[in-house]
Amino acid sequence: MRPDGRLVLVIAEASLELVPRELWRHPAVYRNARRRGKRPGETLLDVSLHYDAMRRLPDREKRGRPDIVHFTLLEALSSPLSRAGKLAVYVHTVNDRVLYFKPGVRLPRNYNRFVGLMEQVLVEGRAPLTGEPLVWVEDKGFGELMDELGGSLVVGFSRRGEPASLRVIASRMLEGGIVVVGGFPHGFFDERVYRRLDEIYSIYPEGLEAWVVVSRILCALEEALNILYPDRKL
Amino acid sequence: MRPDGRLVLVIAEASLELVPRELWRHPAVYRNARRRGKRPGETLLDVSLHYDAMRRLPDREKRGRPDIVHFTLLEALSSPLSRAGKLAVYVHTVNDRVLYFKPGVRLPRNYNRFVGLMEQVLVEGRAPLTGEPLVWVEDKGFGELMDELGGSLVVGFSRRGEPASLRVIASRMLEGGIVVVGGFPHGFFDERVYRRLDEIYSIYPEGLEAWVVVSRILCALEEALNILYPDRKL
Repeated sequence: MRPDGRLVLVIAEASLELVPRELWRHPAVYRNARRRGKRPGETLLDVSLHYDAMRRLPDREKRGRPDIVHFTLLEALSSPLSRAGKLAVYVHTVNDRVLYFKPGVRLPRNYNRFVGLMEQVLVEGRAPLTGEPLVWVEDKGFGELMDELGGSLVVGFSRRGEPASLRVIASRMLEGGIVVVGGFPHGFFDERVYRRLDEIYSIYPEGLEAWVVVSRILCALEEALNILYPDRKL
Repeated sequence: MRPDGRLVLVIAEASLELVPRELWRHPAVYRNARRRGKRPGETLLDVSLHYDAMRRLPDREKRGRPDIVHFTLLEALSSPLSRAGKLAVYVHTVNDRVLYFKPGVRLPRNYNRFVGLMEQVLVEGRAPLTGEPLVWVEDKGFGELMDELGGSLVVGFSRRGEPASLRVIASRMLEGGIVVVGGFPHGFFDERVYRRLDEIYSIYPEGLEAWVVVSRILCALEEALNILYPDRKL
């Protein structure tokens, strides 16, 4: 829990980045950027557009999935926990940038508008360009973010973690744990993230989508904090 | 609960439809369709593209939001409850069409691909066009769908419903209730849906996004059915 009393959720190694330089000249990348009036390096890497171009990209199974970040952020920021002002969300990306969100920010529901917003933030550093920022980015590794957040307990979620019930997990979180969920489609946390995790839990024997893991953890926290309507019979 | 033991979720009056005829000649509609090599009537109504064109459309505040249907379906179909084969999902649209899904179907995570799939289903009636369908559509009102599903108890969710805890709601569902969540951005159920709801519950004093309501109900059902890892201490 933060000094301001908010619980902390970090989407780690999020599959969100601008098209890397080595792909700028690929025909599909160039064509897609041009159609949108942008340079390739100003557009998001997206496997649904750049599948062929990504073939030789290192770690490609973890990259080019801004849709995962979009869903997971909407899940977190539309939750009753967030609306009650009790959740702080950070996105740490696969290439060590950290996105910050003004509390109460309302992100675009439409994917293409979300992509446009993220492109602006990653290129210009913030959105909107003037006035108080709603979303902004800083170059920062996962370890630096953890140092900044100052949590005494960092808890990751992965199919490979120790099986635990949502109730136990919620109580660990309420003791001050930072929740870390991977924002990538497959695989496990990178070593740089892994070594900062104090505990790793699994909520289900199979791999789950990041937004499902987030919604279940938030559901358990909302129950523990009586944020939804409570049981009248008790 | 269905005869096959699956719980039933219906996304009702879903904001998913092809562009209606009266908008086909609007410049923005025509231009967007043409850019995608389609006729206007073969494209989905989408307020992020057709805002101006929709100005005089009746009930426009409930229409043109396929993103809501996309999120809500992904939330439901990626849930542990669905993966355990215990959830059947139906989408009833704002203009009385019903979408059916083959159990275990994996929908596109990318919004633009989801739009393409829905356009095919709404124009051609099914996808894929040959072989066993994964998604198909029938012209059918909400009442007809309820008759077909044969539920003895139909439970709607709305901010205007009776406050109830997730635990109570889950137990009602396990007695055979059909869960009905509105697939539209604002407002209340239409009279034709409303009159078929036996009970209406609210889980939170403010309006919530459809996908949040669905995730919380599924979370409660998963807890009641011990689908996630259970509490070891109990």
